Amino acid sequence: MAQPAEKKKVLVIGGGFGGVFAAKALERQGRGKLDVELVNANNYFVFQPLLPEVAAASIHSSDAVVPLRQLLRRLQVRQAEVMGIDFAKKSVIVVQGTRRIPIDLAYDELVIALGTGVDLKRFPGLPEHALTIKDLSDAHRLRTHVIGCLETADVTEDAEVKRQLLTFVVVGAGFSGVETVAEMRELVTRALKYYPNIKRDDVRVYLIEYADRILPTFPADLAEYATQRLQMHGVEVLTGVGTTAATGTAVELTDGRIIPTSTIVATIGNGPHPIVSTLGLDLHWGRIKTDRFMRVPGLDSVWALGDAALIPLVDDPKEDPADYATQTAQFAVREGQQIAANIVAKLDGKDPKPFAYKSKGSLASLGMSKAVADVYGIKLSGTLAWLLWRGFYLSFLPGFAAKLRVGVTWLLNSVMPPNIVQIQSDRPTTRYIHYRKGDKVFEPGMLIDGFYTVTKGSFQLTIDNPETGEHFEKVFGPGEHFGERVLVRSALRTGLVVALEDGVLLFIEQKAFTRFARAFPFLDNYFKDYIERTFGGTDKSFAPRSANPKSELETLP
Amino acid sequence: MAQPAEKKKVLVIGGGFGGVFAAKALERQGRGKLDVELVNANNYFVFQPLLPEVAAASIHSSDAVVPLRQLLRRLQVRQAEVMGIDFAKKSVIVVQGTRRIPIDLAYDELVIALGTGVDLKRFPGLPEHALTIKDLSDAHRLRTHVIGCLETADVTEDAEVKRQLLTFVVVGAGFSGVETVAEMRELVTRALKYYPNIKRDDVRVYLIEYADRILPTFPADLAEYATQRLQMHGVEVLTGVGTTAATGTAVELTDGRIIPTSTIVATIGNGPHPIVSTLGLDLHWGRIKTDRFMRVPGLDSVWALGDAALIPLVDDPKEDPADYATQTAQFAVREGQQIAANIVAKLDGKDPKPFAYKSKGSLASLGMSKAVADVYGIKLSGTLAWLLWRGFYLSFLPGFAAKLRVGVTWLLNSVMPPNIVQIQSDRPTTRYIHYRKGDKVFEPGMLIDGFYTVTKGSFQLTIDNPETGEHFEKVFGPGEHFGERVLVRSALRTGLVVALEDGVLLFIEQKAFTRFARAFPFLDNYFKDYIERTFGGTDKSFAPRSANPKSELETLP
Repeated sequence: MAQPAEKKKVLVIGGGFGGVFAAKALERQGRGKLDVELVNANNYFVFQPLLPEVAAASIHSSDAVVPLRQLLRRLQVRQAEVMGIDFAKKSVIVVQGTRRIPIDLAYDELVIALGTGVDLKRFPGLPEHALTIKDLSDAHRLRTHVIGCLETADVTEDAEVKRQLLTFVVVGAGFSGVETVAEMRELVTRALKYYPNIKRDDVRVYLIEYADRILPTFPADLAEYATQRLQMHGVEVLTGVGTTAATGTAVELTDGRIIPTSTIVATIGNGPHPIVSTLGLDLHWGRIKTDRFMRVPGLDSVWALGDAALIPLVDDPKEDPADYATQTAQFAVREGQQIAANIVAKLDGKDPKPFAYKSKGSLASLGMSKAVADVYGIKLSGTLAWLLWRGFYLSFLPGFAAKLRVGVTWLLNSVMPPNIVQIQSDRPTTRYIHYRKGDKVFEPGMLIDGFYTVTKGSFQLTIDNPETGEHFEKVFGPGEHFGERVLVRSALRTGLVVALEDGVLLFIEQKAFTRFARAFPFLDNYFKDYIERTFGGTDKSFAPRSANPKSELETLP
Repeated sequence: MAQPAEKKKVLVIGGGFGGVFAAKALERQGRGKLDVELVNANNYFVFQPLLPEVAAASIHSSDAVVPLRQLLRRLQVRQAEVMGIDFAKKSVIVVQGTRRIPIDLAYDELVIALGTGVDLKRFPGLPEHALTIKDLSDAHRLRTHVIGCLETADVTEDAEVKRQLLTFVVVGAGFSGVETVAEMRELVTRALKYYPNIKRDDVRVYLIEYADRILPTFPADLAEYATQRLQMHGVEVLTGVGTTAATGTAVELTDGRIIPTSTIVATIGNGPHPIVSTLGLDLHWGRIKTDRFMRVPGLDSVWALGDAALIPLVDDPKEDPADYATQTAQFAVREGQQIAANIVAKLDGKDPKPFAYKSKGSLASLGMSKAVADVYGIKLSGTLAWLLWRGFYLSFLPGFAAKLRVGVTWLLNSVMPPNIVQIQSDRPTTRYIHYRKGDKVFEPGMLIDGFYTVTKGSFQLTIDNPETGEHFEKVFGPGEHFGERVLVRSALRTGLVVALEDGVLLFIEQKAFTRFARAFPFLDNYFKDYIERTFGGTDKSFAPRSANPKSELETLP
């Protein structure tokens, strides 16, 4: 048969360092022979090392990302969500755009580069109440949240609330935790001059690490230097202590200490990517086991790399992380290049090469123009290390345009005031909220903001009408609910609700709840009955103290 | 009595051009005598003229805004939401931060500078389906939406969907409409090179204006020039035609024409600010009537200015907009200065001065480095007008830092590729969706995404099981619902739902709906019963075609 060979379809799923560099190298090395497509949920590549700077408003959100189509001009980029993989049929199932019909994308060779997910389930309350810093939206949310805390702290007259708002806790002191706490501290410090009612001493910033020192992958003396720098700038570094649980107003530590705070940033709990954990693959430490060539054993034409993969660096790896490729951008980039070479070799009938790479070193920024570096065996700290850090990341940032933009922004920042614009994003309309025994859910005089259902624990409602002397009490357990009087337009809470034990509530925001109840007569009737039965009518007693124009119901479309 | 006079409290509500310039002037002119506080829902001032550029990704979001605290260093800024005003008690009721307890802010003099709101209720479907461009979040949403349309259009294989996605409609051809359509057209044109499967001819951009020409406040020849420029760049300008209704997939015009589109931007429908309309004030054209000194008649110490106010320029104004101050930034700035002078004069026992100002002219950008200008009676068009536009706005942008940032960005843009990063924001979990007779709500094979309740019209569900030959049909009217099988984990739609007449559905997104039903046993039981009764069990027939790993239920906290 002398027919021209058909182009082979190589699908890369995931657009982080590993996926992008694999796709780029595949296109280059396989030009004319391969048809390369990269699938990613976002249309951009995230330069993760810069996320703490985005969170600190030092650079623009869009400067820490590069559109994948600009980065990968010569291959097909598809913005779609991966739903699953059919290894037998050799296809990836994706959903894209507005018509939510799953599509099968056939492949000849598949590269899994999905990275990792976050799994905080071991710590009750942390999944619901901690912020993370994995993605651009996380960084953005963190910035918005911190500035929001300053705005409210500046005008509140409640000392306890003010203290909570001005306490910031970062959990986990690896790279990401250290850089985040440093940038956050810098943001708050720089911003304080705009908040006349907040004194420097009002602010507390904690870094919490379960190991006995921070930056475990760094030499001990650099970690010590980093600890001192952070302390000098007002970060309280707590080592040898972990987190056990969190609520919306506090975090609990393994030593029993409770820190009242509105801001918990979790940089711990790396787990498998949600899709990776459903593929039925052999996972170890939450990562896909591969052979030394980055092939997934037992499957035809499936490769894995980057943070999602566990790639042995030796033929007979032990239970020692040093026997495997580390989860850093440096490694992912090399893995991408090697995987491309291996795939091209395979299709050419040649032998693949095992992955081998030795780290060139590590860098961690400490904010305030300081950093620590351990590069080619040379240890550096201070401003020189920081300049190295900036230069290194600038050179690493893909695309000339992005380099220029970030470089210019860094220059502008040195002569400019910080940006404290708070671009608010909507909070989710349904949220699980954790409470510790004794915590107040709401109290009289608060604006009614939604409806609560108990999913765990028990909660006590007390209503006292100061005018009539009436008193009402009720305890709610799982499946029971309160706050339904939002449906009948009372504007302010008349009752006090307190957690009788540790518990969880499902909160549904007023607008969503009333829309639902109004559209759905069955539910509306249920609540009307319930209110009549439980409170003896809607307006008889416990009437709101004042009318509130904003509580008017939305006009139906 | 020789006691030192107490400082008078002046409260300014609203942080647009009028509010900010009033607060600034009050602080300066009343130093030592006045205690000035400005209240605004966001912690930043929005430079509205630049919003279309934000929407077009020409400048960063944060470059079109300036933190109020940076702008107004010498006075108290409070980020809070105004809930109402008690004119008798002389206090403004606000809600701020996390503790939702309304607070009374007492004032001696009050300046209402709340601007306007958007009211699209006259056009069924437009409030739910049109994007607006009043605020930073609007601009951001528009950009995200347009880039999302390009991403999906590039990979969809459905020609009808592709056409819808690539049709962009702007309603209203005043300043804002013209600048928005021009910038949007430019964004799409510049971005096309990254979307290999979209041809230039696939894209359609419409500008729709009810009047017989665009830019009604400009001289006719400049409007004519603007029309030609827009047409040259591929904008179809339809004048003398309005909008009657909209759905998620089309807009209907007064001439009966229906344009299938996923993107409708409404720049029409200015109405009173939601709070202003509840104050019981004398409104005309949706604006607060003031006297020539900007005092609100009948109230003690209450002033109004900017877009929220209707300020007569002559003693005996007629039903002629020319007899009143126009709603532009230029006027608002002068009003702010004059109102400050009048308030200071009043407190000093002197006479206030009537507001008087004559517009210096207007400028409108047409994109692609062209503009029209009518300044001091001189008419300009083309690149020179565009340079004037940029220079003028740069000089107008408050704060040196913002000027420098925007200037640098503009310079960078001239040598840089456009930014097509799509930073997605969450869509609301409950939405009203309008349908025209015959529209499909969903069809077999689509991923189940939520639960629908009929609020208007009627909808027909048809399920055919190709394997068993079973057939099921049901019509749903107001208060009835479908899609509840999302609760029992079927992954893909098995039925087809079509609107039998024009109607509206309330959509509740899967996660919110399942959380609610699971927390609330009463509802869960209702749906289990309902599914059993209506469909004869959950898994008996109509089973999903394939399993879907993503449909696993969320772990309860």
